[in-house]
Amino acid sequence: MIIVMKPHASQASINNVTEIVKSKGLQVHLSQGEEVTIIGVVGDKTRLANQNLELAPEVDKIVPVTESYKLSNKKFHPQPTYVKVGNAEIGPDTMTIMAGPCAVESEEQLMLIARAVKKAGATFVRGGAYKPRTSPYSFQGLEEEGLRYMQTAREETGLSTICEVISEAAIEAAAKYVDMIQIGARNMQNFQLLKEAGRSGLPVLLKRGLAATIDEWLNAAEYIISEGNPNVVLCERGIRTFETATRNTLDISAVPVIKAKSHLPIIVDPSHATGVRNYVAPLAKCAIAAGADGLMIEVHNNPACALSDGPQSLTFEQFDSLTDELAPYAELAGRKFR
Amino acid sequence: MIIVMKPHASQASINNVTEIVKSKGLQVHLSQGEEVTIIGVVGDKTRLANQNLELAPEVDKIVPVTESYKLSNKKFHPQPTYVKVGNAEIGPDTMTIMAGPCAVESEEQLMLIARAVKKAGATFVRGGAYKPRTSPYSFQGLEEEGLRYMQTAREETGLSTICEVISEAAIEAAAKYVDMIQIGARNMQNFQLLKEAGRSGLPVLLKRGLAATIDEWLNAAEYIISEGNPNVVLCERGIRTFETATRNTLDISAVPVIKAKSHLPIIVDPSHATGVRNYVAPLAKCAIAAGADGLMIEVHNNPACALSDGPQSLTFEQFDSLTDELAPYAELAGRKFR
Amino acid sequence: MIIVMKPHASQASINNVTEIVKSKGLQVHLSQGEEVTIIGVVGDKTRLANQNLELAPEVDKIVPVTESYKLSNKKFHPQPTYVKVGNAEIGPDTMTIMAGPCAVESEEQLMLIARAVKKAGATFVRGGAYKPRTSPYSFQGLEEEGLRYMQTAREETGLSTICEVISEAAIEAAAKYVDMIQIGARNMQNFQLLKEAGRSGLPVLLKRGLAATIDEWLNAAEYIISEGNPNVVLCERGIRTFETATRNTLDISAVPVIKAKSHLPIIVDPSHATGVRNYVAPLAKCAIAAGADGLMIEVHNNPACALSDGPQSLTFEQFDSLTDELAPYAELAGRKFR
Amino acid sequence: MIIVMKPHASQASINNVTEIVKSKGLQVHLSQGEEVTIIGVVGDKTRLANQNLELAPEVDKIVPVTESYKLSNKKFHPQPTYVKVGNAEIGPDTMTIMAGPCAVESEEQLMLIARAVKKAGATFVRGGAYKPRTSPYSFQGLEEEGLRYMQTAREETGLSTICEVISEAAIEAAAKYVDMIQIGARNMQNFQLLKEAGRSGLPVLLKRGLAATIDEWLNAAEYIISEGNPNVVLCERGIRTFETATRNTLDISAVPVIKAKSHLPIIVDPSHATGVRNYVAPLAKCAIAAGADGLMIEVHNNPACALSDGPQSLTFEQFDSLTDELAPYAELAGRKFR
Repeated sequence: MIIVMKPHASQASINNVTEIVKSKGLQVHLSQGEEVTIIGVVGDKTRLANQNLELAPEVDKIVPVTESYKLSNKKFHPQPTYVKVGNAEIGPDTMTIMAGPCAVESEEQLMLIARAVKKAGATFVRGGAYKPRTSPYSFQGLEEEGLRYMQTAREETGLSTICEVISEAAIEAAAKYVDMIQIGARNMQNFQLLKEAGRSGLPVLLKRGLAATIDEWLNAAEYIISEGNPNVVLCERGIRTFETATRNTLDISAVPVIKAKSHLPIIVDPSHATGVRNYVAPLAKCAIAAGADGLMIEVHNNPACALSDGPQSLTFEQFDSLTDELAPYAELAGRKFR
Repeated sequence: MIIVMKPHASQASINNVTEIVKSKGLQVHLSQGEEVTIIGVVGDKTRLANQNLELAPEVDKIVPVTESYKLSNKKFHPQPTYVKVGNAEIGPDTMTIMAGPCAVESEEQLMLIARAVKKAGATFVRGGAYKPRTSPYSFQGLEEEGLRYMQTAREETGLSTICEVISEAAIEAAAKYVDMIQIGARNMQNFQLLKEAGRSGLPVLLKRGLAATIDEWLNAAEYIISEGNPNVVLCERGIRTFETATRNTLDISAVPVIKAKSHLPIIVDPSHATGVRNYVAPLAKCAIAAGADGLMIEVHNNPACALSDGPQSLTFEQFDSLTDELAPYAELAGRKFR
Repeated sequence: MIIVMKPHASQASINNVTEIVKSKGLQVHLSQGEEVTIIGVVGDKTRLANQNLELAPEVDKIVPVTESYKLSNKKFHPQPTYVKVGNAEIGPDTMTIMAGPCAVESEEQLMLIARAVKKAGATFVRGGAYKPRTSPYSFQGLEEEGLRYMQTAREETGLSTICEVISEAAIEAAAKYVDMIQIGARNMQNFQLLKEAGRSGLPVLLKRGLAATIDEWLNAAEYIISEGNPNVVLCERGIRTFETATRNTLDISAVPVIKAKSHLPIIVDPSHATGVRNYVAPLAKCAIAAGADGLMIEVHNNPACALSDGPQSLTFEQFDSLTDELAPYAELAGRKFR
Repeated sequence: MIIVMKPHASQASINNVTEIVKSKGLQVHLSQGEEVTIIGVVGDKTRLANQNLELAPEVDKIVPVTESYKLSNKKFHPQPTYVKVGNAEIGPDTMTIMAGPCAVESEEQLMLIARAVKKAGATFVRGGAYKPRTSPYSFQGLEEEGLRYMQTAREETGLSTICEVISEAAIEAAAKYVDMIQIGARNMQNFQLLKEAGRSGLPVLLKRGLAATIDEWLNAAEYIISEGNPNVVLCERGIRTFETATRNTLDISAVPVIKAKSHLPIIVDPSHATGVRNYVAPLAKCAIAAGADGLMIEVHNNPACALSDGPQSLTFEQFDSLTDELAPYAELAGRKFR
């Protein structure tokens, strides 16, 4: 931690700050310039957590030097993490494809889709049973009934299954039926839910919040891991910006940034990022090229009648030809695919 | 709802769309220009909710005409809402001041602060017992113990009390001890929590999410009201933008925009919006001038040792002189104050 | 400047950086923690401008300590600046009101408006003769003819005049006819234009760019002042965010932030910030309450037929009653008004 | 254009609007719902440009149906544009690589770099002679001297040359020495400069502004084309968002969006988008995968001593191995490369 004093701060103010720091058992290193004095703090900074040194006289600003997340930080865990889910493994050697409908609508629908996406090369079927919707008047999901269909889909197809959870009760239910749970963008800082996901021990896909910085995202992962659950996979799904040509703005740079800062796997969701079916294929290729460990893609047997997010869903034919197009990109990236 | 066809769309494509619309018992009005045909839909559009007409051949875009929120919408409820909380009332006639620490730290601390803010003119004491913190290693709140201190503070001072809730369990606990619950910015689209807040019947202060549009905010209010709980007050607390000179960017325009779109009261939190103590006073005046129904301000007996958000907290002396400065602004706004 | 090394950086890497710094005649102060070493640099950092120390082995990041703007910086010029324009003075004692049409459309129109805004209390008439428009097919302004009408308006009414410039030629023309020039938001980082505005010696109103940080804005002011022209007034007019309920998001916090960081006057333009006539009055009051030195407001004799920005323009009656409403706010702020 | 009336608008208000529209020789189509009346306008809407119908009684909002840009619009020019520059052609069949230093520093430096990037497969050498810098105290470029070195580089290597222009004078100078001019992000809405670039007839690379929507960007291209110059290439270089892990946020979706909306070629600049050397390679691959027609990449003989943007520049070795890595991606995209 670095404390920057205001220009020409008095010796008394500098002494005051150094006294506070030393009183907590930490060391200080002074850099006294002609105008500005800088105070470097050496030792365990959590001891200063409640000192609010910004408020001490003539302090200009505090500059943190180390990140507040540790367990998700590559600096302390340089080797990449592999997350096992059912028969699948998410990590640097594989291009994982999760595909399925935005919302589970019926058993028949889910089975149709699960078989189709498996045939095209997916290793996970996704499907929402609890839907967070902007308006209370939109379809909210089949809840536990939907989870049971997911279980059937797994049994029939051998695909791993993933489902979003939005409450403690949903985590408990999901634990009975699916292989991996998803924390959605709107709940990325629902810290209660993160802790419960951590305690569940289930593999967790943690989507990035619409306005979350990468540091906040890794701190959210830290909530899960610090409960003893290291099985976290990140998912970039677009952030909110001023641009309205796409539903969100896919922050593709997040892929190499996460690879530089963390050991956790990261996948990309081009369907939610753009909200437009025609943009899914170019962005899916793009995600593989950028170094992503997987993709999550919405596929529906009849997008024109999907109860949620139809306009961004691919038909079976579109998904089939997409996986064909993706194969050489996965090969270039040196990843197992299909 | 308006459906805009692509330039020179074929008659077959236009017929297809009009057939779908009519099959749901709705009427269409065609506007055929030289290049573009527009199809106006008349009737209850929820019948088209799952049709995904964006995907029909040669459809360019769908333009919604009416908002999806109804109960929070001024168009259908032109009279302003007054929300009763304990002895207090939040609405157009009053300048409500909620003040207190970010986090309840001890009974003694809370009592000191409650007495001080009451003396200065506050009618609510605020204080967090469940703290949503970016890092899992930061202080997380005293939980139910903190709520009990809030109850004591109310009994001793007569102030109304408000406390943030972050889970169903917290709502149940809060119902026993405090007058009003707060849904924080990070939980604005935690729809499960919104529904439970609605079912609780308690007055709810709904903070705007960091990246929430005003329409999404009013839809979040709709979740609460549609559970039968009309006692919702909105709180603008800054949105996330590219500017880093302040912690968030206070969207002061939200005050007149909400007054134009909704009948719900709106208050402003300049402490969280800026994160800097020195900016609280100018923005508090500004909020009253813009038409806000109240303010939420962080006050601490010893900001330099606050366990949370010290740098933005006012001392008792600062809060005292702030309320003196605010009095003439409240008078200009025609609102009862102190 | 502070150089933060990567955790456990080698002594060789630390020595390398300190050698580079010392070779430029600067001093270093080392803070060696258990994990991280911090190198404080003391002296004139511009000597390191082209060293790109970020690229040296095992350097984690560079943290600047002092701002790059000097002449616009309050740290070095603590007294507030008063800018004289014609008979007027912009600064802490006055509430300056600039009003007029977005675009000058005819001599008759401008004279009508100038007389009306003078009567209501404005001390400046504004009016665009060179209009930067998003589409090349929109009205682009009367150019020099418009400037001549501005001159006439000044002669007849005694109001000071201000006009936007978009090129070197426009600055030369404006110098002949008007008292103050305006650099618009889209040109805030047109550095060529800033330098020319500096060389002109004319008082300059510098609008904030749509995506400009406050630091970039003060650096833009630095361009003007460093050419020998200290007569710079800043104008906050809204920044671009995800919110679409208003045309831009008025960053009202910019007012106290600028007051903390700079000695330059700052005014607020609620018309462009919101793009909606009904929001102008609440935000105008709000700007005065936040500490602004003035307001720029669009007024038109017939908004429904304005060639530019009609929807945000006030009628004469609206502007009249607005200035009546503003008077007590100016009084509370201790500023001369009308 | 669609005019949406307020709920239960009176017949008088509806008549008023339809009268205004008809008085301009346009047709109206009414859709009268139970609550809301919608008025479709058929014909040439520019006749209504100055009517400000938003201000008419009981009008709720105006919804534009067609884009304001025509010449850059794919709807009216479905075939992709090929832009010829010197010996090169930018368009769908080629992967164009522009590479070189941020700033031209000396003849020797530029020649070294030009030879190196040619050897690695670039077809353009880029280099700034006029540098727009945030601070007036940063290096501002060699100006015409730099352009002369560009000419020498072209003569010696046969590479096409591109250089940023920031003023009319710079365009005139550039016309003498280089093949293509660049309008930088900060000048994307410097409409005076756009018109002059249009009049010059030179091929223009138009970078996207930091806060420019895709529609505004295409309107900026329209300024150039409407002066009779169709040789416009777009360049996505990152937009400004809340995320600070990268200098800007590369909006990779802009590539497929531009391909859907416009016939103009688009290239991507991963160097400016991220500001970090290590992220250039993954984002360069990503741009090709997304469908870009080219790349602009900063390369420097000695990044640690570059006068501008060293931290994002590649060394010769890095650029060499990057083009090797890119080759199979260009092949997958079916584009000629090297």
